[in-house]
Amino acid sequence: MSIIDPQESTLYQQLAETFATAIHQGTWLPGSRLPAIRRVAGSHQVSVNTVLNAWRILEDRGLIEARPQSGYFVRGRLPSLTKTRQHRAQVITPGSEKLDLIDTVFAAQNHPDYLNISLACPQNSDFYPTAKLSRITASLLRRHPGMIGRYALPPGSERLRREVARRSMDSGMALNSDDITVTHGCMEALQLALRAVTQPGDCVGLETPTYFYLFPLLASLGLKTVEIPTDPQRGLSLDALEMLLSEQRLQAIVAMPNVQNPLGCSMTLEDKKRLAKLVNDYQVPLIEDGLYGELQFNWPLSPAVKAFDRHGWVIYCSSFTKTLAPDFRIGWVAAGRFSAAVARLKAVSSMAESALLSETLAQFLESGGYDHHLRTLRRRYATQLDEARGLIARHFPQGTRATQPQGGFVFWLEMPGNVDGVALFHHLLQEKICVTPGALYTLSDRCKHAIRLSCCYPFDERYTYALKRAGALACEMSGIAPGNESTHGSMGVVGAK
Amino acid sequence: MSIIDPQESTLYQQLAETFATAIHQGTWLPGSRLPAIRRVAGSHQVSVNTVLNAWRILEDRGLIEARPQSGYFVRGRLPSLTKTRQHRAQVITPGSEKLDLIDTVFAAQNHPDYLNISLACPQNSDFYPTAKLSRITASLLRRHPGMIGRYALPPGSERLRREVARRSMDSGMALNSDDITVTHGCMEALQLALRAVTQPGDCVGLETPTYFYLFPLLASLGLKTVEIPTDPQRGLSLDALEMLLSEQRLQAIVAMPNVQNPLGCSMTLEDKKRLAKLVNDYQVPLIEDGLYGELQFNWPLSPAVKAFDRHGWVIYCSSFTKTLAPDFRIGWVAAGRFSAAVARLKAVSSMAESALLSETLAQFLESGGYDHHLRTLRRRYATQLDEARGLIARHFPQGTRATQPQGGFVFWLEMPGNVDGVALFHHLLQEKICVTPGALYTLSDRCKHAIRLSCCYPFDERYTYALKRAGALACEMSGIAPGNESTHGSMGVVGAK
Repeated sequence: MSIIDPQESTLYQQLAETFATAIHQGTWLPGSRLPAIRRVAGSHQVSVNTVLNAWRILEDRGLIEARPQSGYFVRGRLPSLTKTRQHRAQVITPGSEKLDLIDTVFAAQNHPDYLNISLACPQNSDFYPTAKLSRITASLLRRHPGMIGRYALPPGSERLRREVARRSMDSGMALNSDDITVTHGCMEALQLALRAVTQPGDCVGLETPTYFYLFPLLASLGLKTVEIPTDPQRGLSLDALEMLLSEQRLQAIVAMPNVQNPLGCSMTLEDKKRLAKLVNDYQVPLIEDGLYGELQFNWPLSPAVKAFDRHGWVIYCSSFTKTLAPDFRIGWVAAGRFSAAVARLKAVSSMAESALLSETLAQFLESGGYDHHLRTLRRRYATQLDEARGLIARHFPQGTRATQPQGGFVFWLEMPGNVDGVALFHHLLQEKICVTPGALYTLSDRCKHAIRLSCCYPFDERYTYALKRAGALACEMSGIAPGNESTHGSMGVVGAK
Repeated sequence: MSIIDPQESTLYQQLAETFATAIHQGTWLPGSRLPAIRRVAGSHQVSVNTVLNAWRILEDRGLIEARPQSGYFVRGRLPSLTKTRQHRAQVITPGSEKLDLIDTVFAAQNHPDYLNISLACPQNSDFYPTAKLSRITASLLRRHPGMIGRYALPPGSERLRREVARRSMDSGMALNSDDITVTHGCMEALQLALRAVTQPGDCVGLETPTYFYLFPLLASLGLKTVEIPTDPQRGLSLDALEMLLSEQRLQAIVAMPNVQNPLGCSMTLEDKKRLAKLVNDYQVPLIEDGLYGELQFNWPLSPAVKAFDRHGWVIYCSSFTKTLAPDFRIGWVAAGRFSAAVARLKAVSSMAESALLSETLAQFLESGGYDHHLRTLRRRYATQLDEARGLIARHFPQGTRATQPQGGFVFWLEMPGNVDGVALFHHLLQEKICVTPGALYTLSDRCKHAIRLSCCYPFDERYTYALKRAGALACEMSGIAPGNESTHGSMGVVGAK
């Protein structure tokens, strides 16, 4: 299944997709050697360079690796989930039990003594260009000593908004700086977007599973949640969504069409176009959370749904928190027809963002180092994702399935034998290891046997140890033996047909 | 009228109050020389040092000035408002006309080409310790290169919260760091506080006039506004408030008991105690906006209402935006019995504040330079306030009255002869001069003849020119001649009996 529009893709991307599909389907098992480059070039009637470019994409995605003097080999892989779950669209508000669980897990995730293998933030400086950013900040302070003494005002740094607009082209959007309001991270972007388009009592459609902080966010605004079936490989079910829209049961939708959290999946290009058309036809705002969009393993990036937004019904939210400077908490929102409302809300929500931090990012983006940095980050995450999947295949109960993320660094495990994710979380916490139970990502009673993991950490002994311990405990709880090296090829991918 | 509790005040404060009252009552007219220090010491049976300390307080407040070799002289003063306005508590929501006016004025205030004599922010670096703050930020970046790469998490920097708690003692509060959530400026603190204690449809009591951004803030949360009479010298009318509370017509109150914006007044200690008792007795949350609290001209500071909060019904909001680093937008809230709710809302509103900026402030506060800085700032504002009043007395129509701020840098003018503040604003805008019309500060049709001005700018030719032009236009519009030097002593203070 290609997620690149044939019209837009180039020769080497098509080739990469062909081989990626073959690898996923088991044509080449993990550890096996790919055909020689000249041979592939010959059989596909392309140049050697085209093959090398295709191989680089597969390397970035963690699918293959080069071994010196030997050629390219398929890496160890993890199977995917297959079960299609039964869904009934239900209007729910989170009970205090769920909110308490979110608090408990959040507190554990932030506890300095715990070994966290689940937090969606590297907490590690060498994943970011901190040295270069620091130099820019220090230089701004030197050259513009008055900057600290001036009031920051909405809609935020013109220079940063211009850079954001310029880069939005990479995701197929044609924004200009006036379309953009700078926000305090993606969380505030989502908060403002929701407040701009809903009234208390409204129903908001969410993916299942979805980013767990959306539940308290919606609850804090008096909004009701309608969970929509979401395929671990294709994302939001558009048939289910269209049904809900036609029944006028939703006043807004929040979704992550690219690199969904926690599943890691992206929608196909066709689905994105259909989603854009649906929300424009039904005139129901879609809040598109693009937080991980730039961490897609594909390049060029698969476009945002916002790229196909004809009449401004898509509100695009994103941030540099996951890609550049987590501490700065600089995000942005392009709110289409709701731009004026969002800009007004920003002023009365928290006024504006620091010019010092905004200008630092703007200058970094202008300098052109961002693309190189993203490329390094993508490759790193793709590699670590694959290594993590390899470990899980060996140490978690046989029958464990995992999602095959299209980008980012979080993924989703479903465990066999009634292993309860919340129980596993509590058991592991006693050993000071922190995972996130799947139950957090839905208000329903689905996802009980799932956990979300993250591979954004340095892949060191501590991380490996924690992952193995989690697997050993899951085996113990389920009474099922762990997988082993030989089962890699057949380990299920979440959502695979 | 002393605003310091006799039990808490010291000898020199009492003396300063005695002379301040005498000066305000016209015992010594502007330009007249105060009695010699030794003579005052003798007649009041205190030491020379005590008199010198008292004189320093009066200097800080801009009431007197030392002239080399000549002694201490009373500075030029401006009369105060006297009219007691008729009020009817009315539940109002802002019409789009009012919101548009707010947008228009706000846009003008931020226009780089306009000469602004009204914005509540110096926009000038030498009012702030920017050099020292810059050094701290640069040093943090050098010593902790990983800081930028880590996720900022609520409730915010422990070190900053400890410093804030420590300093809260100066305002009579006994907070500890756990009571405090770090926010994105005071605006977010107010936003979170309102969301924590109200439901859409609730009525919130506000001072009249009050900070104009409260109107769109309340409107954005679906809250209704009830305006409460506010005396330009004593602040919120507690009799009116008690009536509203007894009739159960308010679900929350927002007020600035110390250095009210736009009036500049502070409540008396007795009124603060009564206000704290009222909201605790009626169990209606008071959101106390303490933004200008540390810029009181008195030292020691007159306490916050929160200081007398027995059962946690007062939510104290403040920020370092007006005192240290406008660009950082670091604020905080101590929410009493609503602390947990506010902390949860912060997480889903905008997650957390930058550790880099928070630690910079924490380190500056720890270094002990803050008190010195505040003292300089207070003295500067007191002086400039007085100079501005002198200019206004000479150049605005005779009969113009002004408030006598207890701190900060904004003040309030009421003009005679039906001068319309909004018309004056528009006329001045044609000359690229920006003032804030009084109509912005209320949803009623009061305050039509008022404007708010600010003296937080360097007192240079441009500022002086703009102030004179505003006065000349007001004279033209009213057909009333300007005052002159000799009228200083009799110019009305807003609210004076």
